[in-house]
Amino acid sequence: MLEVGTAPDEPCLRADAARNRARLLEAAARLIAEHGVAGVTMEAVATAAQVGKGTVFRRFGDRTGLLMALLDHSARRLQADFVGGPPPLGPGAPPLERLRAFGVAVLYRSAEQLDLHLAAQAEPARRFAHPAVEALRVHVTMLLRQIVPDGDCDLLAQTLMASLDPALIHHLTRQCGMPMERLEAGWTDLVARVTRTGP
Amino acid sequence: MLEVGTAPDEPCLRADAARNRARLLEAAARLIAEHGVAGVTMEAVATAAQVGKGTVFRRFGDRTGLLMALLDHSARRLQADFVGGPPPLGPGAPPLERLRAFGVAVLYRSAEQLDLHLAAQAEPARRFAHPAVEALRVHVTMLLRQIVPDGDCDLLAQTLMASLDPALIHHLTRQCGMPMERLEAGWTDLVARVTRTGP
Repeated sequence: MLEVGTAPDEPCLRADAARNRARLLEAAARLIAEHGVAGVTMEAVATAAQVGKGTVFRRFGDRTGLLMALLDHSARRLQADFVGGPPPLGPGAPPLERLRAFGVAVLYRSAEQLDLHLAAQAEPARRFAHPAVEALRVHVTMLLRQIVPDGDCDLLAQTLMASLDPALIHHLTRQCGMPMERLEAGWTDLVARVTRTGP
Repeated sequence: MLEVGTAPDEPCLRADAARNRARLLEAAARLIAEHGVAGVTMEAVATAAQVGKGTVFRRFGDRTGLLMALLDHSARRLQADFVGGPPPLGPGAPPLERLRAFGVAVLYRSAEQLDLHLAAQAEPARRFAHPAVEALRVHVTMLLRQIVPDGDCDLLAQTLMASLDPALIHHLTRQCGMPMERLEAGWTDLVARVTRTGP
């Protein structure tokens, strides 16, 4: 993933581009908060960010590209939190505590952006190979290896991640009416069972 | 779900319709075995079953309808096995053994019909509410209630079912190159952890 603004050539132009991109993404996030994913059109984002429509198209290609970029933006923030943020999500806490905190963070992040996650979900054959999904799974695998070194941590990580699938969260909260507190307790319970640790 | 041939009116016509439907589904299943899901067109099924193309359209509406009907057909066979078939899948074995056997049966059934499952998978917002998926989940919940009566069996059943998602099986076997034996061992291990029973 390109980090804009760090290359030695044309630092001002690149910093400008990064700021523009961030402004467009913030405008899109505001539109979603106010009108849901359906409210995000290229025109609406251009108007909200006070730029021309062409700028939005040049930056993201199309609406799907914009939705993916929005998720990528929030995925990187989450990733920064669990890679280098404060414990218990970040380093410093025992791996079991980090794993518990990770699931809760993912649950609430998905719940906040549920429509966006559903709209941007890849088709079945590519769903599990998506880079954003892989980054989370790799983190869970790393933590599991420290907690249950003799387990098949690759498979266990897949199961833990599958229980955090946005489509499942959508089903449980909106179709079955479960409160988020129950999903949070369910995650903590699942982690305890899978790692064979105390409740 | 309608059971054809059991209604008192026009028993012969209904039995005929059921036989025709079964013949078309068998022809479609043969085509998949020989040429993959891509080989299933309405024309090819009509030719293979020696009927007119119109008959196939009248019966299934379109290609997606035919694919769904094919899955429904095999789902009912699996359902008959775990509801009334011989143990350990059917009644008679302890619930823990039935749960182990259930996952293995679902795993191999999905692996056999992977392309069909992927082609017929519903969009994210409807994936978990699909009747075929619900029937399996209800069975898992029922077994879990007998094994871990104080657990949140609704949520645990969702997690167990998520680990049997055809899209995940596709990813693990075709994209990561894992053998089915490892997935089978992973299921047995997962059931032991989730139910806190011996390995």
